[in-house]
Amino acid sequence: MTGWVEKLDSVARQANTLACVGLDPDPALMPVDDVFVFNRSIIDATHDLVCAYKPQLAFYEALGIEGLQALGATVEHIRRVAPEVVVVGDAKRGDIGTTAAAYARAMFEVWDFDVVTVHPYLGRDGTQPFLEYEDRGVLVVCRTSNPGARELQDVKLSSSGGQTVYQRVAEMASEWNERGNVGLVVGATYPEELAQMRSAHPSMPILVPGVGAQGGDPGVAASAGANADGRGMLVSSSRGIIYASSDKASYPDAARAATLELRDGINAALSVTA
Amino acid sequence: MTGWVEKLDSVARQANTLACVGLDPDPALMPVDDVFVFNRSIIDATHDLVCAYKPQLAFYEALGIEGLQALGATVEHIRRVAPEVVVVGDAKRGDIGTTAAAYARAMFEVWDFDVVTVHPYLGRDGTQPFLEYEDRGVLVVCRTSNPGARELQDVKLSSSGGQTVYQRVAEMASEWNERGNVGLVVGATYPEELAQMRSAHPSMPILVPGVGAQGGDPGVAASAGANADGRGMLVSSSRGIIYASSDKASYPDAARAATLELRDGINAALSVTA
Repeated sequence: MTGWVEKLDSVARQANTLACVGLDPDPALMPVDDVFVFNRSIIDATHDLVCAYKPQLAFYEALGIEGLQALGATVEHIRRVAPEVVVVGDAKRGDIGTTAAAYARAMFEVWDFDVVTVHPYLGRDGTQPFLEYEDRGVLVVCRTSNPGARELQDVKLSSSGGQTVYQRVAEMASEWNERGNVGLVVGATYPEELAQMRSAHPSMPILVPGVGAQGGDPGVAASAGANADGRGMLVSSSRGIIYASSDKASYPDAARAATLELRDGINAALSVTA
Repeated sequence: MTGWVEKLDSVARQANTLACVGLDPDPALMPVDDVFVFNRSIIDATHDLVCAYKPQLAFYEALGIEGLQALGATVEHIRRVAPEVVVVGDAKRGDIGTTAAAYARAMFEVWDFDVVTVHPYLGRDGTQPFLEYEDRGVLVVCRTSNPGARELQDVKLSSSGGQTVYQRVAEMASEWNERGNVGLVVGATYPEELAQMRSAHPSMPILVPGVGAQGGDPGVAASAGANADGRGMLVSSSRGIIYASSDKASYPDAARAATLELRDGINAALSVTA
């Protein structure tokens, strides 16, 4: 059984891209009304340039049943036109074991995601049910890209020589990674922390959100977060790509141009590093 | 505008109950096939005995679109037959600001919950969008009821004289509580921690899951978690009530009997304490 980590490595190597496009449909910003039509146009215009798509579940849930139907259709469309691409369910779930098992069924069996973002707060038994799907996996929220990230994540612990909460979370994720299907989420807006996480965890894949609209630089992020092979990460931009143009006729082309820029910015930085 | 905290206090006082019934439909355990029919029978049999219902979103999401339609119908039914009862969306969401705003729309505008459980890991800006709904609010996941809770939540910080992560989280929640619409989640399976949280935070409401199937004692939890008025908490049982009988004819009566036992166990402990 090929797991999501091998799938990611394969598409990243073959298509030479670490770019991930976040599919966060917001009716206030979309140039068309229909969520699935919007996503489909973005996917059709970009799927040869990306290693992953990352639907953020909040934006579908905010649209109720219709939004969730569009989510289902979107994942199906990706499977049809780009089966080699990883689909990340950015859901940030986290609960006790029996509940986590229900979330795992939702994420892997209902929505068919390859990998899901999860909160670390409940500990190992809140993550285990996801890891029992050997070909799927989780990305553990470790150091987020938002301004408030420092409030809890950067607090120092009394043990382990001043280790922070997020450093301990990364260690926990590494301890849970008995089947090789665990990765981390570390925001692009904090490149020093990202470099430190990569150094401490040379082989876990890292999802790096926060480039583009949130201000992270893709080249800086790539240099900080890539593994020894120049891969092992997903650099994700959402608003900067899908809302690159508000024009109904040209938004797919604008999304393609923005994705190319993301991909090439990453690759240029990595070729300098290599 | 009456907020959820006042609504909770009002129903708890008038109906003399701190009992909350968790609505966690699992087809493997339900004596009937239809999720809404199941929930409706439970609600009709128990709504004069509870201060709140708590649907756990994972169990609806695991059933796909149909499950979510049943969730919508369930909340509507509660509004119709028991408008005084608080409806807790146990969703444990937590994300960056723009995403949290979309989750808040989903939880309050799509699903019409009074209050939602949230993860603290992203800090203040991940919670703020929920708090801007002044008549709604959040319950911040602080000390959970599962075995793995200790792994991160009990780790000691280097500052503040050995405060633990969960104690710091409760302090953060208190700092965010500028509009009086923030509460805590503290599991019944750790009554000492619950008593300590109540002592440190005399007025924040506390959702206490983990009684019944998870092993927490309702009377012990009530004595540890009630505020000075003998209220300010929701003692929640799910499996112990809704699956009290697997018999198709008698499960609503069995749920009522189990809810009565929960309510009376709480009240007996509080009358001894008072």
